[in-house]
Amino acid sequence: MTGVGPKRANFPQMANAIRVLAMDAVEAAKSGHPGMPMGMADVATTLFAEHLKFDASAPDWPDRDRFILSAGHGSMLIYALGYLLGYGGMSLDQLKNFRQMGSKTAGHPEYGHAPAVETTTGPLGQGLANAVGMAIAEAHLNARFGDGAVDHRTYVIAGDGCLMEGISQEAISLAGHLKLRKLTVLWDDNNISIDGPISLSDSTDQLARFAASGWATCRVDGHDPAAISAAIEKAKSSDQPTLIACRTTIGYGAPTKAGTSATHGAPLGAEEIAGTRKALDWPYAPFEIPKDVLSSWRDAGLRGGDARAAWEKRISADKNCDAFKTAMAGDYAGVLTKAIAEYKKSLVEAPQKLATRKASELALGVINDVIKETVGGSADLTGSNNTKTKNQDPLSAENYAGRYVYYGIREHAMAAAMNGMALHGGVVPYSGTFLVFTDYCRPAIRLSALMGLRVVYVMTHDSIGLGEDGPTHQPVEHLAALRAIPNLNVYRPCDGVETAECWELSLKTIATPSVIALTRQGLAQARLKQSDENLCAKGAYVVAGKNADDVTLIASGSEVSLALEAREALAKDGIKARVVSAPCFELFASQSETYRKEVLGKGPRIGIEAAVRQGWDLFLRRKDSFVGMTGFGASAPADELFEHFGITPAAVAAEAKRLIG
Amino acid sequence: MTGVGPKRANFPQMANAIRVLAMDAVEAAKSGHPGMPMGMADVATTLFAEHLKFDASAPDWPDRDRFILSAGHGSMLIYALGYLLGYGGMSLDQLKNFRQMGSKTAGHPEYGHAPAVETTTGPLGQGLANAVGMAIAEAHLNARFGDGAVDHRTYVIAGDGCLMEGISQEAISLAGHLKLRKLTVLWDDNNISIDGPISLSDSTDQLARFAASGWATCRVDGHDPAAISAAIEKAKSSDQPTLIACRTTIGYGAPTKAGTSATHGAPLGAEEIAGTRKALDWPYAPFEIPKDVLSSWRDAGLRGGDARAAWEKRISADKNCDAFKTAMAGDYAGVLTKAIAEYKKSLVEAPQKLATRKASELALGVINDVIKETVGGSADLTGSNNTKTKNQDPLSAENYAGRYVYYGIREHAMAAAMNGMALHGGVVPYSGTFLVFTDYCRPAIRLSALMGLRVVYVMTHDSIGLGEDGPTHQPVEHLAALRAIPNLNVYRPCDGVETAECWELSLKTIATPSVIALTRQGLAQARLKQSDENLCAKGAYVVAGKNADDVTLIASGSEVSLALEAREALAKDGIKARVVSAPCFELFASQSETYRKEVLGKGPRIGIEAAVRQGWDLFLRRKDSFVGMTGFGASAPADELFEHFGITPAAVAAEAKRLIG
Repeated sequence: MTGVGPKRANFPQMANAIRVLAMDAVEAAKSGHPGMPMGMADVATTLFAEHLKFDASAPDWPDRDRFILSAGHGSMLIYALGYLLGYGGMSLDQLKNFRQMGSKTAGHPEYGHAPAVETTTGPLGQGLANAVGMAIAEAHLNARFGDGAVDHRTYVIAGDGCLMEGISQEAISLAGHLKLRKLTVLWDDNNISIDGPISLSDSTDQLARFAASGWATCRVDGHDPAAISAAIEKAKSSDQPTLIACRTTIGYGAPTKAGTSATHGAPLGAEEIAGTRKALDWPYAPFEIPKDVLSSWRDAGLRGGDARAAWEKRISADKNCDAFKTAMAGDYAGVLTKAIAEYKKSLVEAPQKLATRKASELALGVINDVIKETVGGSADLTGSNNTKTKNQDPLSAENYAGRYVYYGIREHAMAAAMNGMALHGGVVPYSGTFLVFTDYCRPAIRLSALMGLRVVYVMTHDSIGLGEDGPTHQPVEHLAALRAIPNLNVYRPCDGVETAECWELSLKTIATPSVIALTRQGLAQARLKQSDENLCAKGAYVVAGKNADDVTLIASGSEVSLALEAREALAKDGIKARVVSAPCFELFASQSETYRKEVLGKGPRIGIEAAVRQGWDLFLRRKDSFVGMTGFGASAPADELFEHFGITPAAVAAEAKRLIG
Repeated sequence: MTGVGPKRANFPQMANAIRVLAMDAVEAAKSGHPGMPMGMADVATTLFAEHLKFDASAPDWPDRDRFILSAGHGSMLIYALGYLLGYGGMSLDQLKNFRQMGSKTAGHPEYGHAPAVETTTGPLGQGLANAVGMAIAEAHLNARFGDGAVDHRTYVIAGDGCLMEGISQEAISLAGHLKLRKLTVLWDDNNISIDGPISLSDSTDQLARFAASGWATCRVDGHDPAAISAAIEKAKSSDQPTLIACRTTIGYGAPTKAGTSATHGAPLGAEEIAGTRKALDWPYAPFEIPKDVLSSWRDAGLRGGDARAAWEKRISADKNCDAFKTAMAGDYAGVLTKAIAEYKKSLVEAPQKLATRKASELALGVINDVIKETVGGSADLTGSNNTKTKNQDPLSAENYAGRYVYYGIREHAMAAAMNGMALHGGVVPYSGTFLVFTDYCRPAIRLSALMGLRVVYVMTHDSIGLGEDGPTHQPVEHLAALRAIPNLNVYRPCDGVETAECWELSLKTIATPSVIALTRQGLAQARLKQSDENLCAKGAYVVAGKNADDVTLIASGSEVSLALEAREALAKDGIKARVVSAPCFELFASQSETYRKEVLGKGPRIGIEAAVRQGWDLFLRRKDSFVGMTGFGASAPADELFEHFGITPAAVAAEAKRLIG
């Protein structure tokens, strides 16, 4: 990347502009984190004014470099940059309204609120792992479409907190293994955390640690633009990802508080702010940026204009232009509707007993054929999650064009990397582990939901039905815990047909992530008639006994076939039971009251799920019943466990009779 | 440690005994993981026969070395050892019933089921972090009671999965920082994971990585007892924790499958088993152990008898014997009842507006004075979680006698280390972070619950009430998600008095962990009358309006004072509202139907909690209402957020009027 930008001699004052905006905005808000933006101002100035490929007038330019503020508490850094660089919508008023209701300048950077925010950060370590996902997406698309279309770098500012969080190890070891050479981490090496000096809690040699994971490393004075620039330049020619330890002073410029945790997470106070202005030789009023400094920044903001124009020209002439645009658009409604309808037909024509994890693999076979952008993976459970289809080669350092990532035993970084891939665009990530291990990646799942990303979590072994591995591996509370997360669709299909429908919904739902919970054990096919309509789209529907009103059996996943068996047993006693399959609570909750009443019928209700009851009040009233789990599972063959915990057709039939009275 | 044990010449056959028991038990169970026990059999034999300080006839000897099988899927290693060493209750029948209903030999080692199982493992990386906690407890008790009472080591067998999980980085960097020299990790360096060779997913130089965190490291042939023994011996004199990379062959002995992932998680099959018997020169029937081999093992099991006898003698003569026994017993019912009752009285006499996090600090001041075994901490939020009291010095490499751990930004390892500390005994761990970050340590919280450990999670900033930090830091689904976990008490006290009561309950409840959710913002004191009874013990109780039956307002934590304000507003309109404080759903659920009805009254009900509704059907019927959150929060001052999301006394009063009609 080249281009006209401000002179390096102007950098100190440009950096000071960041510093004062950060401290002034925090002071105005009476809360926030001035220390980090003040400490990393020189690094950020050097990066944005000399290296980052971007165009402030086109924040969505697909081939821009990505900049991730993993240390999200330093949000004023990115907001100050947004204003100074001239990003649309980032007015001075936004800075003055830092952390206020309705402003774009939220306490932590939130994706979709302010421009230049590539991902929501704040929960530490997430941004770093998002960046690994973005770099994977870049490498993959570069392999697919070539340098002319995709050739950009990913830069991360990370703090000590990011590097202490476990997710960072998963992320950096994955990045090193995949040799993501276009990934550069600028570590704010300020020796301070909230509790005080880092020496209170850590003695890690971070450079040695990163080197052990295959990273190039170096250390620079984080207040020396020439040194910072040289280190970034060197990173560009490395064949490994690079860690640049930037030795900085937190709260740089604050006369008495600089270098201490007092600058981390609280306003500096009027006196210290006045002292800082003096120390920085910055005689201007709060939020006032002198013209020449602003002009230097605006120059920086437009540096990338020529490069972007050249790219626009190049991409429109590219023979793969259409495929590239299709990939970036990511709209698969048309192809999916057709392919899934056909596939469902084939299932109905030849019903079979299938574990839904296997059904998922079959559906993926269809999907991965018609969508070229899916990139699958698993946290070292490929053969158990059934996430790899025949048409997928491994995505590796030797072959970025591959469409399957062996993520290793790294659930957390896997999930966060998928967020990064979805944010980057051009790929559609899905990946698997056991449902119980959603706990290991829950912070990242939450961020998928908060950001509204199309990320698909394939979570197999979804109940005591996994059998002998025992309670450490048997989810009982996980469906409830996931359903509690706003804007997350939790699917639990009951057979091959529903599995295909849930996959269709997951991929068509652009702004909501999905968890698809799947069984280890085989299940009888419940759906025996072809329906062009996606019945799972309504969240729950009558799968048998449409007009039966003696009792309503409501079940999800593996318990649907159990309910169907109970229905047959009850029929022998002249009791008419309807069976409702409920593959997605969230979608059912969004249906009309009329539809919901119609589906649930007039009889007493029994909810059936091999999990805890919490969340089932969506379907059940106080007088209704629930057949499921009340505590942890046990280690034994699956059939014996269902018997042991009383989750059987006989138990359901008995409960139905008791309810009917 | 010295003692008479088997000769090293016998080790190969002793190791083979482990191998055949593992493969035979897995074959009988038709599921399980033979590869790891077969690969690590030589390492385990060397450790148990020459180094580990233990006495199979006294598995609970407090000064035993701890052995943690972090790679818990290799459970047959520990069960085979249990039988071979002669631990009581570990009969051959138990091995034959591996993974069957009701046996002690669960799929993964479960604490409390089989002897010699020091912690429940299976979720990878947890055991390693538990071990760090055990080593912290040992160092602390050693500093307190001296070498005569407490001087033992902690050994871990960890696999590649343990080392790839992020929690491992948190654990090893904490251990290195604290210079836990008595901690030794034996890494099963077999180059294989479930998906295949490690090279599919990882390239980390683990020795360099551990060295970067302050560990001594070495690599040995994991099938050479002399080399293994020398490495362990060297570890004993190190002033750092030690990683011993044991290069092994997974499934050692299996003629065609050894060294491949085929041996990891499935039975070997009859043919391969026959071949293994041949290769190992082991002509015995399944589960048959020749007398001389068993005799060698039994010798090993009793090696520690003299040492234990000497310890018993020493401890009873120790001037601190009583204090040591009190610490190990951990029963504080008496002192707590008295201290908390007195403290509550002082609160009632001088009511004040307090954030419950501050109230928690005050309660801890009382508690830490009367219980000498509490060891507190925080994941770098000491000043925010208010977990440190004046009487606590930092526990550090320079002062293990300290009672406060600066855990760093390591929520996951912190939680798992607390599990280890509780398992070790002699200390009572509590520690804090923000409630939203329970997500970061959820797998360890789940294990606290599954094992039934007295661990106290102090989780502050428990709602949108934290204000400007925004939705990344505002829990909305976390109370529900935690309440979904079986055997976990989730407390949300409403003022200083309830906070003291919840602390009392947390510390008196031996077999259930606790989460105490606390506010950042100040709350009016709701409890103005002295009650010697712990009212929180029933989970929910009437805090105002005992006989008011127009409407019942049920709230927890910060929303109790809001409900009390709504009650006053309603009173002005002649509406009689009762207010129920519900600090612990789990305890309320366990009360009699009579008590519950009595508390909830006859009026329509409104639940009030600044969180999602899920879980509130414990209190609410379909016709009742809920005032709370339906999605993620936002960044703004707390008062404005409550207004924005409609969680105000006025909104509650309006809803009450609507309900009454």
